[in-house]
Amino acid sequence: MVKDKLIGIDLGGTTVKFAIMTADGEIQQKWSIKTNILDDGNHIVPDVIASVNHHLDLYQLDKERVIGIGMGTPGTVNQEDGTVQGAFNLNWREPRAVRAEIEAGTGFTVTIDNDANSAALGEQWRGAGDNEPEVAFLTLGTGVGGGLIHEGKLIHGTAGAAGEVGHVVVEPYGYQCTCGNQGCLEQYASATGVVHLAHDLADAYMGDSKLKKMLDDGDEVTSKIVFDLAKENDFLANEVVDKVAYYLGLATANLANTLNPSKIVIGGGVSAAGTFLLERVQKEFANFAFKTTRDVTELRLAQLGNDAGAYGAASLALQTAAAQNAND
Amino acid sequence: MVKDKLIGIDLGGTTVKFAIMTADGEIQQKWSIKTNILDDGNHIVPDVIASVNHHLDLYQLDKERVIGIGMGTPGTVNQEDGTVQGAFNLNWREPRAVRAEIEAGTGFTVTIDNDANSAALGEQWRGAGDNEPEVAFLTLGTGVGGGLIHEGKLIHGTAGAAGEVGHVVVEPYGYQCTCGNQGCLEQYASATGVVHLAHDLADAYMGDSKLKKMLDDGDEVTSKIVFDLAKENDFLANEVVDKVAYYLGLATANLANTLNPSKIVIGGGVSAAGTFLLERVQKEFANFAFKTTRDVTELRLAQLGNDAGAYGAASLALQTAAAQNAND
Repeated sequence: MVKDKLIGIDLGGTTVKFAIMTADGEIQQKWSIKTNILDDGNHIVPDVIASVNHHLDLYQLDKERVIGIGMGTPGTVNQEDGTVQGAFNLNWREPRAVRAEIEAGTGFTVTIDNDANSAALGEQWRGAGDNEPEVAFLTLGTGVGGGLIHEGKLIHGTAGAAGEVGHVVVEPYGYQCTCGNQGCLEQYASATGVVHLAHDLADAYMGDSKLKKMLDDGDEVTSKIVFDLAKENDFLANEVVDKVAYYLGLATANLANTLNPSKIVIGGGVSAAGTFLLERVQKEFANFAFKTTRDVTELRLAQLGNDAGAYGAASLALQTAAAQNAND
Repeated sequence: MVKDKLIGIDLGGTTVKFAIMTADGEIQQKWSIKTNILDDGNHIVPDVIASVNHHLDLYQLDKERVIGIGMGTPGTVNQEDGTVQGAFNLNWREPRAVRAEIEAGTGFTVTIDNDANSAALGEQWRGAGDNEPEVAFLTLGTGVGGGLIHEGKLIHGTAGAAGEVGHVVVEPYGYQCTCGNQGCLEQYASATGVVHLAHDLADAYMGDSKLKKMLDDGDEVTSKIVFDLAKENDFLANEVVDKVAYYLGLATANLANTLNPSKIVIGGGVSAAGTFLLERVQKEFANFAFKTTRDVTELRLAQLGNDAGAYGAASLALQTAAAQNAND
């Protein structure tokens, strides 16, 4: 029987998303379950295994047709032994043999990578990356994550820390970062970073602004509110957006100066601000990118939304199968 | 007959360096010729061909034993068609079919890459990179060049502009760069950048300093003089070195945050300042590097000096042969 189906899993702190797709990445079935992080997250892997097996039965999909399983996960993935550690939002404090457990429970070859890398690969394969070989990805959420694709594959680096674009320093000795350093991109371009910038710029601003009034009144301000007010021509909100765009432009340009990708894809919650943000980032990017790369590197918004992780996970499974075939 | 010899060529604006080495990178013969840039650099390729053929005769090396030729060259190399363009120090204004000409003239397979990439690969293979798969290289000369090695191979990017670390922006809206942008690393860490910083810091310094006196007297100051005076505890010279180290620390840390290499190798004329410079760069690097990469990425001085290019060129030839064998 021809193996022609991929299973992509996106493991998150709230839900686990599953997709069955063709080898070309057409989703045929998708479903999700809640992530049960109780009891040190001990239920998570068994729940994933049971859900995969149950749905293969439900859809009457012959196991022989499955190429493999890919999964994106929080935490740090050890590619050699397939363990995951430091996935705090899953309550996994100690390293877990995730790959081996899922392989044993399903009978399939399993490939795992971290969630930002998985989303990066998804966008490269089936989203804004147009399946081009050199693509960089940034995700702007509560933090800033990233993934780098070279010759169609993820760059992991020596300790799996390649693509940590959230910790590229864009303002030396700037805002304190949770990583211990100062001035990391994450502190300026994440949802909390945007709000932090809003507070700081509001302190120095004396003019008329709804954003300023909200901050002064102690109202809860989110990055979405900042962008919405900027679209309504609030002066202070626009100052904040310009500053966010400056830092993103600097970081993406230096990424381009270093790796010369054809596309840099920006996703995550903050990127929901859409072309309103992207156009300003592009302007700053053009100031900082070396001519050769400025001409060939395109900034784009992510296209797959919450499905990026499952697509990328399926792509991981496909790449593992291709590597095995090449070795056979 | 077993193919067991590599020919590495480092084409420069003043001399062309040649080396014959074993497949392990042991140099067995080396020689050089002057680069004749007269007549639009039309003599260069014929001179290279004649010199290779002459020396193979001279050393009575059977052509059957040669795995291939690799060459590092100034300018931009098109990997697809093997042409070189924009090699202004060779007087090559128009694209040249360098690969095809040397292949026709010698009968060997030829691989070419730009000179910074070639030196990077040389240091990775036989120098400070210890033949590890993930290595970044910076060369601090009249400009700042670089090369990035991932899984043992050079990263070229989409338009061959990957590794342009000299044009990473380290001081937004800082010194004007020849590339048209402002604040590129090259303007702070090249030989001319060091002198530029010296002039600027001297303007603001009122204390006692031999460097200040030299600059005020209009004496010719080189980057070597700045470092030598710093070693003699000249206050202003030390301020300049600190500033150079700051920019190099920021740039190398962001390189590490992005690619997580095991080694970042610093070579070129400015690096002749040695551990005196390196120790200060390391201190700044530690401030800006994300913990995971700070722990695994080591900064090192280049070890091969002027031979790096020829070693790297030979490595290019070896990689081409390995790829061909894998495809056979």
